[in-house]
Amino acid sequence: MSRRYDTVSFLTDYGTDDEFVGVVTSVLRDMAPHATVVHLTHGIRPFDVRGGSLALARAIPYVADGVVLAVVDPGVGTARRAIAVEVAGGAGVLVGPDNGLLAPAVAVAGGAERAVELLDDTFHLATPGATFAGRDVFAPVAAHLCNGVDLAELGPAVDAGLLMPGMVPLPREESDGIHSEILWVDRFGNCQLNLEPSDLPTADDVLAVVIDGERRIAHRASTYGHLGAGQLGLVTDSQGMVTLALDQRSAAVELRLAAGDALIVCAADAEEPTPVSSPVTLRRGS
Amino acid sequence: MSRRYDTVSFLTDYGTDDEFVGVVTSVLRDMAPHATVVHLTHGIRPFDVRGGSLALARAIPYVADGVVLAVVDPGVGTARRAIAVEVAGGAGVLVGPDNGLLAPAVAVAGGAERAVELLDDTFHLATPGATFAGRDVFAPVAAHLCNGVDLAELGPAVDAGLLMPGMVPLPREESDGIHSEILWVDRFGNCQLNLEPSDLPTADDVLAVVIDGERRIAHRASTYGHLGAGQLGLVTDSQGMVTLALDQRSAAVELRLAAGDALIVCAADAEEPTPVSSPVTLRRGS
Amino acid sequence: MSRRYDTVSFLTDYGTDDEFVGVVTSVLRDMAPHATVVHLTHGIRPFDVRGGSLALARAIPYVADGVVLAVVDPGVGTARRAIAVEVAGGAGVLVGPDNGLLAPAVAVAGGAERAVELLDDTFHLATPGATFAGRDVFAPVAAHLCNGVDLAELGPAVDAGLLMPGMVPLPREESDGIHSEILWVDRFGNCQLNLEPSDLPTADDVLAVVIDGERRIAHRASTYGHLGAGQLGLVTDSQGMVTLALDQRSAAVELRLAAGDALIVCAADAEEPTPVSSPVTLRRGS
Repeated sequence: MSRRYDTVSFLTDYGTDDEFVGVVTSVLRDMAPHATVVHLTHGIRPFDVRGGSLALARAIPYVADGVVLAVVDPGVGTARRAIAVEVAGGAGVLVGPDNGLLAPAVAVAGGAERAVELLDDTFHLATPGATFAGRDVFAPVAAHLCNGVDLAELGPAVDAGLLMPGMVPLPREESDGIHSEILWVDRFGNCQLNLEPSDLPTADDVLAVVIDGERRIAHRASTYGHLGAGQLGLVTDSQGMVTLALDQRSAAVELRLAAGDALIVCAADAEEPTPVSSPVTLRRGS
Repeated sequence: MSRRYDTVSFLTDYGTDDEFVGVVTSVLRDMAPHATVVHLTHGIRPFDVRGGSLALARAIPYVADGVVLAVVDPGVGTARRAIAVEVAGGAGVLVGPDNGLLAPAVAVAGGAERAVELLDDTFHLATPGATFAGRDVFAPVAAHLCNGVDLAELGPAVDAGLLMPGMVPLPREESDGIHSEILWVDRFGNCQLNLEPSDLPTADDVLAVVIDGERRIAHRASTYGHLGAGQLGLVTDSQGMVTLALDQRSAAVELRLAAGDALIVCAADAEEPTPVSSPVTLRRGS
Repeated sequence: MSRRYDTVSFLTDYGTDDEFVGVVTSVLRDMAPHATVVHLTHGIRPFDVRGGSLALARAIPYVADGVVLAVVDPGVGTARRAIAVEVAGGAGVLVGPDNGLLAPAVAVAGGAERAVELLDDTFHLATPGATFAGRDVFAPVAAHLCNGVDLAELGPAVDAGLLMPGMVPLPREESDGIHSEILWVDRFGNCQLNLEPSDLPTADDVLAVVIDGERRIAHRASTYGHLGAGQLGLVTDSQGMVTLALDQRSAAVELRLAAGDALIVCAADAEEPTPVSSPVTLRRGS
């Protein structure tokens, strides 16, 4: 009843300055030479399980059928479990630590079907030290899955309902507006909020954003290039989420924002300046 | 009359800290699994269309036959056109925004033969937001080209002569020397000028360079390792262009130079110190 | 008697902001389309031959059979030799400059069997400048090896015993402890020493480390997560080497350490505080 896979989609916080990614890719190449490795990203901040889990969840709808190998693993070598989780009728298996990293992606993929703890070390590499499970546990398991080993052979079944959940902050509606959190700051400085457009407090084109007590006008726009120079925008991004953005400038740098920061989105007051006459005044980036 | 391609050469300003590159690669993997993706670079500075166009033009003579997917696209989602341009008798198709990014590479490849605007959205992915054309327009089009869809099916023909030109600055000969511009600063701090060796004002081994009014002796050399310690060199680089360089040090850092900076190259005066007795005095890098 | 290879494992100091890696990969794709390129890392610091040689040696036990293409080459275009070295009964060939970069990896792979200097330029690309041997010499040679060209065809044999050795510092036992050097600081700030656990001066769980005259308690641990908050650890890393580490923090930043720095590991004095009662006081990272 097993199936073979020919793609491994790979995400870590390893960076690419060391040879970690190359070594894991080498193990995959050596053990499952028919498989193609797609590098989703290795730029997750060190130890940032939440950041990694969100990136994986954003990517998962586009990932090719196969194995997803995800490693952001501050607890490597401790009691945290190493797991493999099957989704989508066996179209995909996610492999990684059971620390919440996989959970949002599993949910986006329709939920866990089977899950095992990777305890059978006949499917692992012998190791001179316990600090590199990506190389010694997760990569060989991914390769064996590609080669047709069934999930059930890799270790004892675990209750998919007992896997570590991911932590995605929910927005909160209060009297002064919707309290939101920045999920992700991308390379361009766009700040993705935990809001869909339908969560916004009004259907108006102009709203207000309160950051650290400072209030700014923000304009809905369908893309960055439709914003005026210096105009703060609420753009529907490629995930369908509301993103705080400037055109060709970094909103994160200019508003000093980072992932995890809180802000409030609310209706603009009648007396607030209109978009055309008064572009937002921004502090210069540092 | 169509042909299939099995290589997608991919260049962007996406960086690799986010999952953008991984998602586009996943779309290609999913839609055209026979194709191999070669990552040219994703380190173009955000929104730097000119820098991207020059990197692509430098790479193009070495790129394998197939599709070239290039995205530096500050105008994503606006009226700027999305295009595909066929070159070299169909050996290659360049896909990207019509903002000048593709133009220098197209010229290096012998000029545009057919070009279309990518308006038929049956070849695109449905999208929850207009900000990620790499994923939703350009990657699926590249995959369809790999799978044998003919260029003409992707949208209406456009006049190749009306594509947005690239902007490559030309050197200017004046009485005080040849006025030049830095096209590219590479990782090692070498500063490529918009000059070929035959553009230099004399055939002497020793010339002078004027940067911000400050005059320095510079020595022709065939490679960095032939320069003395601290000696400023005019090296013929791997593109056949003149590059301002130091041996194992960054000329860009020590001379505070960046892409786009202007400088003058001129003959050395008779009374200027000779290369052996007087290596250039350099400011320390910041 | 020749054999074909289908993997090229590729390591450089090129970085990925420029198109260097992409161009070399394109040459490989063009000339040996059946070969898969595995990128070990391109993040070696510019010109850091020793750092590159150590990364390559760490990776080599995991690298798939095939060609290893390694380029950290400050002497490009000078009299330094370009070489190819066969190892492991022909299972692998390392290609790169003869400047010590390949030596530690060759030793890990069991030693050089045949070696040639890459002087036959019919196997190279014509070049407009001598500064990019990765593209013009090493990549085409790697591709020809993949295509079945025998090592002996690429140039004259060289005595493998006369190749440039690598420089790996040895620890030194003295009266005040074992004098050690940091071989490698990884992305997470872990500092790998040139010591195996059996080199440590005592079998105690608690030792002392002297850095710049300042003495600190350090605890043996099998993994980072077993260290208490702020506890300095001597962890056996994934190479089986002793690594100075903190849990989820950068030992390199907090102790201001870099590759090449010296330190002394010695027995803890009886009167030194015990691990539980007295976590190490660390300077804040800069």
